[in-house]
Amino acid sequence: MNTLRGKNFLSIMDLSKAELEWLIDEALYLKHQLDRGERHDELLKNKSFGMIFANPSTRTRVSFETGLTQLGGHAQFYNSTEMQLAHKESWADTAKVLSRYLNGLLIRIYDLPELGMGREVVRTVAENASIPVINALDDFEHPCQCIADLVTMKEKFGEDFKKKKVVMSWAYSERFKPAGVPQAILAAAGLLGMNLTLAYPEGYDLHQEYMDYFNKVAPSSGAKLEITHDLNEASKDAIVIYAKSWGSYSIPREEDLKYREQFKDTWCVNDHHFELADPNAIYMHPLPANRNQEVTDSVMDGPHSAVYDQAENRLHAHKAICVGLMSDKI
Amino acid sequence: MNTLRGKNFLSIMDLSKAELEWLIDEALYLKHQLDRGERHDELLKNKSFGMIFANPSTRTRVSFETGLTQLGGHAQFYNSTEMQLAHKESWADTAKVLSRYLNGLLIRIYDLPELGMGREVVRTVAENASIPVINALDDFEHPCQCIADLVTMKEKFGEDFKKKKVVMSWAYSERFKPAGVPQAILAAAGLLGMNLTLAYPEGYDLHQEYMDYFNKVAPSSGAKLEITHDLNEASKDAIVIYAKSWGSYSIPREEDLKYREQFKDTWCVNDHHFELADPNAIYMHPLPANRNQEVTDSVMDGPHSAVYDQAENRLHAHKAICVGLMSDKI
Amino acid sequence: MNTLRGKNFLSIMDLSKAELEWLIDEALYLKHQLDRGERHDELLKNKSFGMIFANPSTRTRVSFETGLTQLGGHAQFYNSTEMQLAHKESWADTAKVLSRYLNGLLIRIYDLPELGMGREVVRTVAENASIPVINALDDFEHPCQCIADLVTMKEKFGEDFKKKKVVMSWAYSERFKPAGVPQAILAAAGLLGMNLTLAYPEGYDLHQEYMDYFNKVAPSSGAKLEITHDLNEASKDAIVIYAKSWGSYSIPREEDLKYREQFKDTWCVNDHHFELADPNAIYMHPLPANRNQEVTDSVMDGPHSAVYDQAENRLHAHKAICVGLMSDKI
Repeated sequence: MNTLRGKNFLSIMDLSKAELEWLIDEALYLKHQLDRGERHDELLKNKSFGMIFANPSTRTRVSFETGLTQLGGHAQFYNSTEMQLAHKESWADTAKVLSRYLNGLLIRIYDLPELGMGREVVRTVAENASIPVINALDDFEHPCQCIADLVTMKEKFGEDFKKKKVVMSWAYSERFKPAGVPQAILAAAGLLGMNLTLAYPEGYDLHQEYMDYFNKVAPSSGAKLEITHDLNEASKDAIVIYAKSWGSYSIPREEDLKYREQFKDTWCVNDHHFELADPNAIYMHPLPANRNQEVTDSVMDGPHSAVYDQAENRLHAHKAICVGLMSDKI
Repeated sequence: MNTLRGKNFLSIMDLSKAELEWLIDEALYLKHQLDRGERHDELLKNKSFGMIFANPSTRTRVSFETGLTQLGGHAQFYNSTEMQLAHKESWADTAKVLSRYLNGLLIRIYDLPELGMGREVVRTVAENASIPVINALDDFEHPCQCIADLVTMKEKFGEDFKKKKVVMSWAYSERFKPAGVPQAILAAAGLLGMNLTLAYPEGYDLHQEYMDYFNKVAPSSGAKLEITHDLNEASKDAIVIYAKSWGSYSIPREEDLKYREQFKDTWCVNDHHFELADPNAIYMHPLPANRNQEVTDSVMDGPHSAVYDQAENRLHAHKAICVGLMSDKI
Repeated sequence: MNTLRGKNFLSIMDLSKAELEWLIDEALYLKHQLDRGERHDELLKNKSFGMIFANPSTRTRVSFETGLTQLGGHAQFYNSTEMQLAHKESWADTAKVLSRYLNGLLIRIYDLPELGMGREVVRTVAENASIPVINALDDFEHPCQCIADLVTMKEKFGEDFKKKKVVMSWAYSERFKPAGVPQAILAAAGLLGMNLTLAYPEGYDLHQEYMDYFNKVAPSSGAKLEITHDLNEASKDAIVIYAKSWGSYSIPREEDLKYREQFKDTWCVNDHHFELADPNAIYMHPLPANRNQEVTDSVMDGPHSAVYDQAENRLHAHKAICVGLMSDKI
């Protein structure tokens, strides 16, 4: 049963286990319906969905925009510099006003001068909006991506994905990237009772808020968490190697970019890691990937790679989120 | 009866009284229909509406875009720098060409090096287009906003709004803003026979063209105009205090920004003004407002504020304008 | 019969003669249907079409966006700087990912540091995409424009346009422009068996690839080609004078802009050229035109000018292309 109507979608931590499972299943259902050529364009008929982007986007923007069209509505893309935000209108007033026109609103904002400022904006928008607000990546979490990730795991491995060894690993990149993906996965693992291994070099611990959440919910879900600083160790018998770069919370950004150079060779996912893993293991990445830094071309384009299927599932996952939050038909 | 089909919407001064009243009533009708959950998506089915923005926008852009979706059509957002205007294609050719694709065209352009250049562009576009052209704010007038303002007044006070004391006041802002809103209101007041008080410090007279228009139409409509340079005086018994900043036509911009600093304290709308006003008085502003310059937070967020309802009415007003100009169904 | 479904549309040279003729006729059919007020919004119902622009656009963007709406689908405009391309995601990965969301993808890219880099990007996108890719102007060809041009000729002169003297001429402009239009026309002339005259000053030969293609296909189509360096000579008895500027392939850009100044007077199309031409001759230009450089105002705005009709035909031509490549209804 859909219990999401009218709610925000800001963090996996805000969901109940049933809600998270509903989103995964709804996404798979909508995907199957589309595949059969059946229309579902009454679900959000004539509804309008706003998308504020303060940072570039390919997958998020296009999948939401396409999803809304398939659901019978319309998504509006806003570059934040083209709004009156450019004339210093507050986020609060922006949220209040847009709520009068739209049925839902997405916002992407990260990489501001200080960590946490993006989250602060998203919270401000959500508090002032009277319509559902979706976090499309702030500086702490990427919950939209996470639904697509879980859909991909369930699609590949069935309900079993919760019991198998899923590795969420750090990887080297010369570019600073937010930790939104691993933190969302950590939260989801806790909520769903998954068997998660976190792998990263010293200095790349996830944010304490997410560790605390995991520890709070794990007892009732049965989730298991291993932490290792060795990617080879982590890869053994893994069914999923989900490896991407993220910035350190304890090392200042400029130092971090220098410090991490020592991990260039050991923290780039390559074929060897898939020799250690389960023969059916998949490689996951939210994209864009820094090829031959986070992962070799050979893995990205090889038989274990699920990255394009995972990217496709953004579409189905986002449609499920929109249907859950905004449809008055289900 | 709709007599607007195929016409431009450039200035309140181009409308007949009946046309202006039709727009207000159509907006209220469409709002009620939406509220009842009734579709009106055949009114502009499959029609395309272009929106050229040379300046940032939040309300105008989103309300038109949402409105077109609700009416069954589609609005296209263009940042003018992404068009061949960037390669020096003329506004005239742009208008001629877009007329071949679109059912209507909106343009926002102000703040060019010299006052009047924005209006000149809008006129050029309208003269060369063979489709309805909508002025979405040039350097003289904001007629779209004005319809929403009148809808808001009629919604709050019924037909009586024409007889009650409506104050259109200047307010302090450190930012230079165009006088498009007060000039549209002055024209509408003249046309509808309203009881308008203009309040502003010395130096902020409205443009003579609008004063002349008011004086021309007032005799037959019965419109009344008071001008005062004292905001307290103006506020007495007002039912509407519509206060926003605008730039002087007689003082050069840099001097103006300095000159106006003396009005910082006396020309910021605050609770005291609402003690002087009618107990049911509302505060209006087209937004974005410079909080604590044009108006205190306490008024903006207080019981007299109608600013978000007014912003919402942009949607309904713009839908009425689009239906009037572009629908072949009514 | 439509044999284009699922194919790319990158170059006129990739089409069969029957496919090219099908596109022209389909465009004229859709135009007539629109003119009668008949809907054809089931042809691309709920489909999504992506448009990546690395350069400004007016006609291409708006005509595709409007066309998709009329066909029941939705076109998404992307400024390439707002995508993850800005974070160095590869064109190949962008193409692979977008293929999972969209039913078709358009790309405009030219004017990169070296000639041929735009074409290279378009080819890379097409090779990596699993959906139809449309070339909306790279540094060699503008095949979309070409369909609209042929539609315009057929509309004005019937099937006879293939036998009459069509002049594709260089014209002076202070701005460097790509040779995409004349090269597409050259290819189309070869394929359809047209009677083409190319006119340009020394130094503005078209790319050898297009000359070779013409020579390869002309024998079986019966196409004729004259080349002259004299615009007066070319104009004699012409039924079409299609004149626009393009850059030299043999002279470096800065030198070219200087070298061409000697052609300012002789290579601006004026009334005199239309005295030499057939009385029914039309002037064509893809727009934007540099008025009084490429062509006088007197011709652009005079009785021979077909430039706005030609611009309108972009809409009908692009709809035909989209229907051909993407519709599962025909």
